Amino acid sequence: MALVTISDIRSAAGLIAPAAVRTPLLRFGDEGWDGTGGLWLKPESLQPVGAFKVRGAYHALARLPEDVRARGVVAYSSGNHAQAVAYAAKRFGVPATIVVPDTAPRVKVEATRALGAEVVLVPMALRESRAAELVASLGATLIPPFDHPDVIAGQGTVGLEVVADLPDVATVLVPVSGGGLLSGVATAVKALSPGTRVVGVEPELAGDAAASFRAGSLVRWSPADRARTIADGLRAEPSELTFAHIRAYADDLLTVSEEEIAAAVGRLAREARLVVEPSGAVAFAAALRERPAGPTAVVLSGGNVDPEVFAELVRREPSGADPRRG
Amino acid sequence: MALVTISDIRSAAGLIAPAAVRTPLLRFGDEGWDGTGGLWLKPESLQPVGAFKVRGAYHALARLPEDVRARGVVAYSSGNHAQAVAYAAKRFGVPATIVVPDTAPRVKVEATRALGAEVVLVPMALRESRAAELVASLGATLIPPFDHPDVIAGQGTVGLEVVADLPDVATVLVPVSGGGLLSGVATAVKALSPGTRVVGVEPELAGDAAASFRAGSLVRWSPADRARTIADGLRAEPSELTFAHIRAYADDLLTVSEEEIAAAVGRLAREARLVVEPSGAVAFAAALRERPAGPTAVVLSGGNVDPEVFAELVRREPSGADPRRG
Repeated sequence: MALVTISDIRSAAGLIAPAAVRTPLLRFGDEGWDGTGGLWLKPESLQPVGAFKVRGAYHALARLPEDVRARGVVAYSSGNHAQAVAYAAKRFGVPATIVVPDTAPRVKVEATRALGAEVVLVPMALRESRAAELVASLGATLIPPFDHPDVIAGQGTVGLEVVADLPDVATVLVPVSGGGLLSGVATAVKALSPGTRVVGVEPELAGDAAASFRAGSLVRWSPADRARTIADGLRAEPSELTFAHIRAYADDLLTVSEEEIAAAVGRLAREARLVVEPSGAVAFAAALRERPAGPTAVVLSGGNVDPEVFAELVRREPSGADPRRG
Repeated sequence: MALVTISDIRSAAGLIAPAAVRTPLLRFGDEGWDGTGGLWLKPESLQPVGAFKVRGAYHALARLPEDVRARGVVAYSSGNHAQAVAYAAKRFGVPATIVVPDTAPRVKVEATRALGAEVVLVPMALRESRAAELVASLGATLIPPFDHPDVIAGQGTVGLEVVADLPDVATVLVPVSGGGLLSGVATAVKALSPGTRVVGVEPELAGDAAASFRAGSLVRWSPADRARTIADGLRAEPSELTFAHIRAYADDLLTVSEEEIAAAVGRLAREARLVVEPSGAVAFAAALRERPAGPTAVVLSGGNVDPEVFAELVRREPSGADPRRG
């Protein structure tokens, strides 16, 4: 299986520059972090549509031949990928059709429509088949959320930027769901800085990728099992393509508890002034627990969280909180 | 009176680069903003210690002769300036003594101590005299929050970056309290882009600078009047030095209501994924109401907000909210 290369990722960086934010790397915890080499945050929550997904989606559209792109794009998703594809299509001025399960929150549907996409509501079980029909009938192109080299290369630009901003980074921690982000980041980081550890992080309750990594081959968990976590963006599972990148380039996969995830969201709001969704906070949660030696970077993958849920996490003091807060 | 120049600000940009974040300019509202030329956010809430204040404070320390700096620095403040001076002193490895009113929240005192500063608690009325005593007894240097050319030049680097990132910016909106930030930003923007409007924004309840601007000379409001606003970082008043810059370079000063400020904090959290304090959100509040023609940039000056207050503002739907939210 052909893997994405550093040259693909460098090319992606050029193509996405007009549409994606070059996010800064923010030092965490001048007010008390006692990690040994410093902890740095990569806030992809500040991207358009609030997630790193815009990198891969925009890159995938950018790579389509102009006449193909003009016929439009299709995605099936109720989450950040849907809005990222809608955003990218709007930037290119081409039509986007997003197939969304009819159980999706109305606010997500309306946000996707506000980006100019046509939203097609279908029962969950029919998402893929309906998307395939639309591709056939419209002559449009399906943009998958992670299982595509152009999407992986786009996400890999996060890794390029981390190494550029922190050349002596010792460990990079990355959230894992379908594995596109980890695949791209690990490819970039290992090419530029082979001694840097690249570690994926999952919720324990959706820890199928970590189980697969330990087993050396893909282990499948039921969708119901993967749906138990509060980290609703981390319920997908790796593909053969992303798992091949993870086996080739990732050093380890860790899991974090639901309590660790909730505490991480609160600390990021209170101490880093960032609104990060639970899925986006898992790598930070792992860093707080593991305190890796040497300069450590964590990717905060997205910031789309229900305001009620977020407000509760901001207020809640984690058990074992720093005594000066409270 | 000698005013700060663009060359002072360019020099400051070089000096503060190791300690301040080059914050990105983030487009607001791909999901529905209908301003005519686009609205852009400058999130100074992402600076170390969560406020633009680190630019001016670090620059002021950087400009001290090494032997003078080594004797330490003093500041009197209970807010973001105190932590910015403590942070800058820590970066230079010199002692900082911060005189804090004994009514200050414990969390702010502890945060300042965690940055390595010595905190001296005194009754509010004795802040300035105690600071002067410390300067005399320690041989240390007082770092004022805004009434100093080096502080103004440091804050002006925000304006440099806005024009660099958005060369066709038509309007820049900036929070005003003591006026250091507006002075520096207006100086930089008018030098680089004379056709750009630079507008200060205050709470109506602490609208003394706007009243002074209209009167053409400094109008003084009582501290009790200025303390009525939720925007607790905007209760200071301009000095002769900052007012001279404002008269020379600012095009207008506007005020916003308490309700507009509260709604702005909520929208920034929900739609821009940023934790911004009420004081930091006033320029954004003005932009939402005024919808200036052409590309508009707003400075979000800080993000240090009580978690309980913030959680409430995140949850609250403003009256007249977009109907798709709620």
